[in-house]
Amino acid sequence: MWKPDRHNPKPLYEQIADHLEQRISYGEFPPGSLLPSERKLAEQLGVNRSTVILAFGELRSMGIIESRPGSGTRVSKFKWGAVPKHTPNWKRYAEGGSFLPNLPFLRRIREALQQNPALIDFASGELSADLAPIEEMTELMGTNPYPSYLGYGHPQGYMPLRQAVASYLDRYRGIQATESSILITSGSQQSLYLITQCLLSPGDAVAIEDPSYHYSLPMFQSAGLRLVRLPADEEGILPEEIRSLHKKHRIKMIFVNPNFQNPTGTLLSDDRRGALLEVASELGLPIVEDDPYSLTDYEGIPRSPLKSMDRVGSILHIGSFSKMAAAGLRVGWMVAPHSIVERLADARQQMDFGLSVIPQQVAARFLESPYFEPHLHRLRTQLRRKRDLLVEALQQELPDSVRFHVPQGGIHLWCRLVPSVSDAKLLEEAIKKGVVFVPGSVYGSDSGYVRFTFGRAKAEEIGPGIAKFAEALRGLTDSFPTVKKAK
Amino acid sequence: MWKPDRHNPKPLYEQIADHLEQRISYGEFPPGSLLPSERKLAEQLGVNRSTVILAFGELRSMGIIESRPGSGTRVSKFKWGAVPKHTPNWKRYAEGGSFLPNLPFLRRIREALQQNPALIDFASGELSADLAPIEEMTELMGTNPYPSYLGYGHPQGYMPLRQAVASYLDRYRGIQATESSILITSGSQQSLYLITQCLLSPGDAVAIEDPSYHYSLPMFQSAGLRLVRLPADEEGILPEEIRSLHKKHRIKMIFVNPNFQNPTGTLLSDDRRGALLEVASELGLPIVEDDPYSLTDYEGIPRSPLKSMDRVGSILHIGSFSKMAAAGLRVGWMVAPHSIVERLADARQQMDFGLSVIPQQVAARFLESPYFEPHLHRLRTQLRRKRDLLVEALQQELPDSVRFHVPQGGIHLWCRLVPSVSDAKLLEEAIKKGVVFVPGSVYGSDSGYVRFTFGRAKAEEIGPGIAKFAEALRGLTDSFPTVKKAK
Repeated sequence: MWKPDRHNPKPLYEQIADHLEQRISYGEFPPGSLLPSERKLAEQLGVNRSTVILAFGELRSMGIIESRPGSGTRVSKFKWGAVPKHTPNWKRYAEGGSFLPNLPFLRRIREALQQNPALIDFASGELSADLAPIEEMTELMGTNPYPSYLGYGHPQGYMPLRQAVASYLDRYRGIQATESSILITSGSQQSLYLITQCLLSPGDAVAIEDPSYHYSLPMFQSAGLRLVRLPADEEGILPEEIRSLHKKHRIKMIFVNPNFQNPTGTLLSDDRRGALLEVASELGLPIVEDDPYSLTDYEGIPRSPLKSMDRVGSILHIGSFSKMAAAGLRVGWMVAPHSIVERLADARQQMDFGLSVIPQQVAARFLESPYFEPHLHRLRTQLRRKRDLLVEALQQELPDSVRFHVPQGGIHLWCRLVPSVSDAKLLEEAIKKGVVFVPGSVYGSDSGYVRFTFGRAKAEEIGPGIAKFAEALRGLTDSFPTVKKAK
Repeated sequence: MWKPDRHNPKPLYEQIADHLEQRISYGEFPPGSLLPSERKLAEQLGVNRSTVILAFGELRSMGIIESRPGSGTRVSKFKWGAVPKHTPNWKRYAEGGSFLPNLPFLRRIREALQQNPALIDFASGELSADLAPIEEMTELMGTNPYPSYLGYGHPQGYMPLRQAVASYLDRYRGIQATESSILITSGSQQSLYLITQCLLSPGDAVAIEDPSYHYSLPMFQSAGLRLVRLPADEEGILPEEIRSLHKKHRIKMIFVNPNFQNPTGTLLSDDRRGALLEVASELGLPIVEDDPYSLTDYEGIPRSPLKSMDRVGSILHIGSFSKMAAAGLRVGWMVAPHSIVERLADARQQMDFGLSVIPQQVAARFLESPYFEPHLHRLRTQLRRKRDLLVEALQQELPDSVRFHVPQGGIHLWCRLVPSVSDAKLLEEAIKKGVVFVPGSVYGSDSGYVRFTFGRAKAEEIGPGIAKFAEALRGLTDSFPTVKKAK
């Protein structure tokens, strides 16, 4: 991204004015459109707000932009030879469309991370760079890095990857699947998107764990679905509740994340797994099983997915590389009855013509390589270490202000805050101190919960990050006496 | 895909029965679900239908499947310990969902190509393997094949690729854009999908060229849009028609493909480009400019995109690697006002969390490499040669039965058939003879048109492919005397 050059003899404000004029003339900001605020632009460009004010003044004097109190700074409509009706009303278009924008908290977190990459990141649900098997992949792809044919691929995904995923599922997840019952997707997100778009209709009710990552996805609302909350405790959801909920809401599908759930880290107990399958089969209801974290179990205990116990074919099983290797590969999969795989593959062709074959080839080779098993071992060890560091830091910095269960796998720790503070204020305060997290309300819980993700931050950042968070929290509460810190 | 092993001493039908039993027990075909027909399965497995009949008999005798006349063969509901209500009604789910399935002709073509990869392919809109710059890419990626960080990327796409696309647009397309006005997509298909989902609402009218590739995309109907036909002749659309169409239908957006249009190969004339921009700006209407083929101009004449003439910011410009390098990279881009780029990037994050960084890195290096220009030169030469071969074959095989304009760029030739035949019958007959094409009605035209794509077939296949097509056509028409062939 462009930044003014401090070694350039031309004053910073002039450089900024020239740059903005250029972007306006390129059509990036059409006549009548709103420019970023002075504050925001100053942050983006790494300059003082007064410098931006000077640059805006320059552009205003040339008639290129106009400022009006309370409505911000806009590109002038006349300077560019256009009377108002000439430019499409882009604002109206951007606000139109049936697809809803992301949640404000999530957009705020993304923006904060873009503006300040030095923020300690307890928000992004991904692994840190050092946990991705880059060296192994580089070596595996050293010879024959590309398939000889780079055309559109099979709608269900690259055949050698489907075969590799079938062996993986058999070996690691106890799931029997053939390549024709596997759909390669770009990750769990795309799997969920295809399900909500293609198998459900507006007005349908779906049952979702309370809390759940799924509440952070406006895609369910964009598809016009009604969300029914499935109550859960520290052993996961209560399957017996499904019957009465179904009676009341005519549920069409159940969404669960049984292993190290996002955001709570909960492991669904064995008894409840059996009960869930029984009630779903009794009601003829499909279950979507989102299973990204199982192989991160710190003790290396294989946690059987629901799909491995599925005797009647009621489960759509979703897996991904993102949380066990690298999110940037964008490779995931779904196991489903063949008719469902065909339906979703056909729709995906229409949306994006399928995935690039290159990352699919990387994923296939890695899954079948001797590097896969040692990688998992290293990942588990490192994640456990990060969890320990996080738990230690929380106990040290906030002994009386947080309540949590210690997760046994996955990358999330779910925390209840004892002093009652506003989610929005706490997030803003934390960003100021140099740390981000996700407020629990994003996942459908009440205010006063926090999801700390410890996969993304570097090990050495975890302690300092929690110290910054504690500072932010202290700044907002009187109930937390500073002396406690000395304990 | 599994095939029976002819060297295995176990009879083929037993191998097939075992395989099917396994797939059924894996949940790929749940209780009550329909199995493929005997004919289809025989084709897929490359065996006689009688062998499949024997295999089905075996499974039937074990109570695993049930056949009923007229309703096909289904997996037994009782054998698998499930009473009917226990398995979700997958058929109803697959038929539900607001997203529409692909057009039957397109699904038929895909199925035919999967069943018989030896078919000569005049249907797929892509380049043949030998036209993709695989060697160049392999060399460029030889050192540092992967970025050091494989996490989720920037919602707008990988920054070095956005910068490379900005230079490319400046140099080759006369478009001034900065990286913040560029959205990297997986190709034109995803760009169109995002536009229809995020900038338009159900009931909105959009104007589309008649005929157009866009009629082959049920995504417009899935988004609830009304399609208004823009009449066109051999110089492209008639811009003056837009005013009256707008009056009648309140058009919200115009979709055009001005250079070597898909499917007609038409080049929109310069006068009409000016007139189109004028009328759009007068009405405040945005234009979506789909521009995948420009650089394939056989004479190497740079055809300016509408976006390069856009003075008021009314154009969303869509480009892609698919038709000028390799569709399997899945890399494309859109140039749009910043507010639109942000809206679409946010939605795409929700749908699939963005693209893999690996193909984006390949694309960026290739665009900036000294190989790009020679590649384009070679591509143009080869495509012109394929076009010449196609034209020659059509003139030789079907001198009196086809009418067409010779395209000056792109990969499609649009053909009117003089004898009137049914699209469906002609396609089936052609598949039998060993060739596929796309019936013109897929693109919204009347019956009796054909789109021949010459990018995908090998040069040496073009003559024989048209001979097979001519045979198919002759088989269906009396009006075409066989003697003509001797001419």
